[in-house]
Amino acid sequence: MSPTAPQTVDLLIEARWVVPVEPHNVVLEHHAVAIDADRIVGILPIAEARNAFATRERVELGEHVLIPGLINTHTHNPMTLMRGLADDLPLMVWLQQHIWPVEAKVIGPEFVRDGVELSVAEMIRGGTTCANENYFFPDAIGATYRKLGFRAVVGLPVIQFPTGWARTQDEYFERATETHDLFRHDPLIRTAFAPHAPYTVSDESFERIRVLADQLDIPVHLHLHETAHEVEEERKKSGLRPFQRLQKLGLINDRLIAVHMTQLTDGEIATCAEAGVSVVHCPESNLKLASGFCPAEKLRKAGVNVATGTDGCASNNDLDMFGEMRTAALLAKAVAEDAAAFDAGYALRTATIHAAKALGLEDSIGSIEVGKQADLAAIRLSDIETQPLFHIISQLVYATGRHQVSDVWIAGRRKLAARELVDMDVAGMLARTHAWRERIAALDKG
Amino acid sequence: MSPTAPQTVDLLIEARWVVPVEPHNVVLEHHAVAIDADRIVGILPIAEARNAFATRERVELGEHVLIPGLINTHTHNPMTLMRGLADDLPLMVWLQQHIWPVEAKVIGPEFVRDGVELSVAEMIRGGTTCANENYFFPDAIGATYRKLGFRAVVGLPVIQFPTGWARTQDEYFERATETHDLFRHDPLIRTAFAPHAPYTVSDESFERIRVLADQLDIPVHLHLHETAHEVEEERKKSGLRPFQRLQKLGLINDRLIAVHMTQLTDGEIATCAEAGVSVVHCPESNLKLASGFCPAEKLRKAGVNVATGTDGCASNNDLDMFGEMRTAALLAKAVAEDAAAFDAGYALRTATIHAAKALGLEDSIGSIEVGKQADLAAIRLSDIETQPLFHIISQLVYATGRHQVSDVWIAGRRKLAARELVDMDVAGMLARTHAWRERIAALDKG
Repeated sequence: MSPTAPQTVDLLIEARWVVPVEPHNVVLEHHAVAIDADRIVGILPIAEARNAFATRERVELGEHVLIPGLINTHTHNPMTLMRGLADDLPLMVWLQQHIWPVEAKVIGPEFVRDGVELSVAEMIRGGTTCANENYFFPDAIGATYRKLGFRAVVGLPVIQFPTGWARTQDEYFERATETHDLFRHDPLIRTAFAPHAPYTVSDESFERIRVLADQLDIPVHLHLHETAHEVEEERKKSGLRPFQRLQKLGLINDRLIAVHMTQLTDGEIATCAEAGVSVVHCPESNLKLASGFCPAEKLRKAGVNVATGTDGCASNNDLDMFGEMRTAALLAKAVAEDAAAFDAGYALRTATIHAAKALGLEDSIGSIEVGKQADLAAIRLSDIETQPLFHIISQLVYATGRHQVSDVWIAGRRKLAARELVDMDVAGMLARTHAWRERIAALDKG
Repeated sequence: MSPTAPQTVDLLIEARWVVPVEPHNVVLEHHAVAIDADRIVGILPIAEARNAFATRERVELGEHVLIPGLINTHTHNPMTLMRGLADDLPLMVWLQQHIWPVEAKVIGPEFVRDGVELSVAEMIRGGTTCANENYFFPDAIGATYRKLGFRAVVGLPVIQFPTGWARTQDEYFERATETHDLFRHDPLIRTAFAPHAPYTVSDESFERIRVLADQLDIPVHLHLHETAHEVEEERKKSGLRPFQRLQKLGLINDRLIAVHMTQLTDGEIATCAEAGVSVVHCPESNLKLASGFCPAEKLRKAGVNVATGTDGCASNNDLDMFGEMRTAALLAKAVAEDAAAFDAGYALRTATIHAAKALGLEDSIGSIEVGKQADLAAIRLSDIETQPLFHIISQLVYATGRHQVSDVWIAGRRKLAARELVDMDVAGMLARTHAWRERIAALDKG
């Protein structure tokens, strides 16, 4: 019998280890991932892969683990330009005396473009390949992500007061649908409704969002129960907790990406599980702003789809998903009073397949599976800081630093090669960042 | 008038920024630090320094901040060889089925030597220049730190049961005084008594420690109130909280380095402040083992000398003092329900001057001051991840990764040069680490 002719593919990545995330907690040794155009077409032992595929490019990663690109499920990336502008302040001083006055002066397409560009560089260098974005000027934001070849879900903002983006509620909705149309056929950019929070969005707008999200078939990305104060204020106003008010409005469903959720009753947790709500845990932001402790382990146990996000750089102050997974796992144990809670394998899922599910993208990203998009990150585990090496997934979550990310691909395209950003004007980006720094520092009179 | 002849010194480090820690919250721009032999002899603007000093070596750090070397105030560094061996397990399963059975088989001078060597490499690469060590075989541990030119306070263990280090209480004390004598005149190595914990040390041994610590003039390094369980058990046994028992025994004084302290009454906090007790906060270990939340901000407000430590790598899983400062600051805010709590400048003090004070070394390390030892770390702040740059100290604590540490000196000797370890056999160290990995993996039947 003659052997089957090898299939010609664009790229074969040969790795010491592959953690596909699906199936759960599996570590493949000496495996290769074959990629053609933007898709994964094979995952098999290296020797078999060399026989099965003729390849245009081969990358050998002998000391590395290959994982699905990480997904940051809650960010405000233009705010990366305000990283560290005003730390260690009470929330209202931070917002009213620093963030808002500066934002009012700088916000616009140039600001969001340059902030997103800086963020994309940071995210790629940290193994993140997709962001769930939430900020004004989503048209310029989406265009920037598209230009840089970075996968994103851009939020379509709705908020009860006028901003540089829109003046009236009608205008918010017009601009939302226009922006959605811009990216309707884009392979990398999707949209989600992004009503700011229950305390800044009216019942009427929530109802419009519910209808439109169904029509457009997109998620609803919402800050919810971030603080006890927010819950108490809503209760005083409407007699309901914000979660109850959203239930009445029909928004507690599987489109909802509920961010923060530090205040939750057991009943609300059960409802999230039944309704298919995704909860985004932002542990470092919750700590830094003293917002409260999300009951992450209770959510896990209830079967809720938990994802992780960094929140914006003005309250974190980084876009480090390795750090965020680690903090999520550590904090959940202390909050649950159980050292076995929220294990490393689960933490990795919150930054990959759970995140993909939250975004409605679980058929295309979030794991290394044949047919999925080739969004991949390789991490060098031979560094002193990850030696000795007993358990790959545990080491990834508890000991690995993002600077150990060596190579990144998005939709099959190389974005990071041996720590070097590919196809980015890094010098220009840093010059623009510095110019914004000067302008923002001069504006910040707080 | 003829100008003063320049003083000849060994080294001039010219930095974009210098954060001396003392005075508090000061950032010096374009300053140089002059070093002769092991000491700092000048801190002044670069132009002035070039006139004042003739120098054998000059190091220019144009994008860097120079800080005092970080001090890790609670570690079990030989355990770095068990990094990630057994994560996500309940405390007793972790200890009884993994850590203790493996330790029983491997413990000895070779294990501690190789574990300390790996740790020193990791610590230097992370800007740490001094460790408060707590493990068996302190003679071999101290000898390893000395050989590697790393500053350490080595704990002299006392525990109520026989180990490979000593069989009887008398033997623990004999070996403690012998080990102390070994390092009596060492410029880098000091000792401290290291009674394990109130639940594993008798009143009689504590009384001997109190007397001997005074005679030898050394600190007492003790795990204290790590968990609520420990406090409750002591109360059942003696009717006292462990802290009260130590008070009765005369150990609550300014020699005491009390580690963990997650369970504290307001009265105990006030007593710590009055008595000059140093509290070592190990936030990541406390989270990972679900031990509880140290009231770090209450301690700060009460004026207690708070230092930070990583704890051992089996419960962290790194020796990253940048990460630990950050977690300490973030967690303290959430626990205190105050976003302004435990600010970045304070967090930096807990890893420098407070740590030095805890160790009784505040006259020689912990800040960049003339006359102090030249223990220094330079951090490159031009990376994408630390742009834009508004506030140096805030950026150091909230956005900097330890991999941005470029250069390190201990007692005036270069230990890290542009990320390369100086005078270390890295290949040999990694080979020894790998051999231990194989042996430990084979032993771990948990």
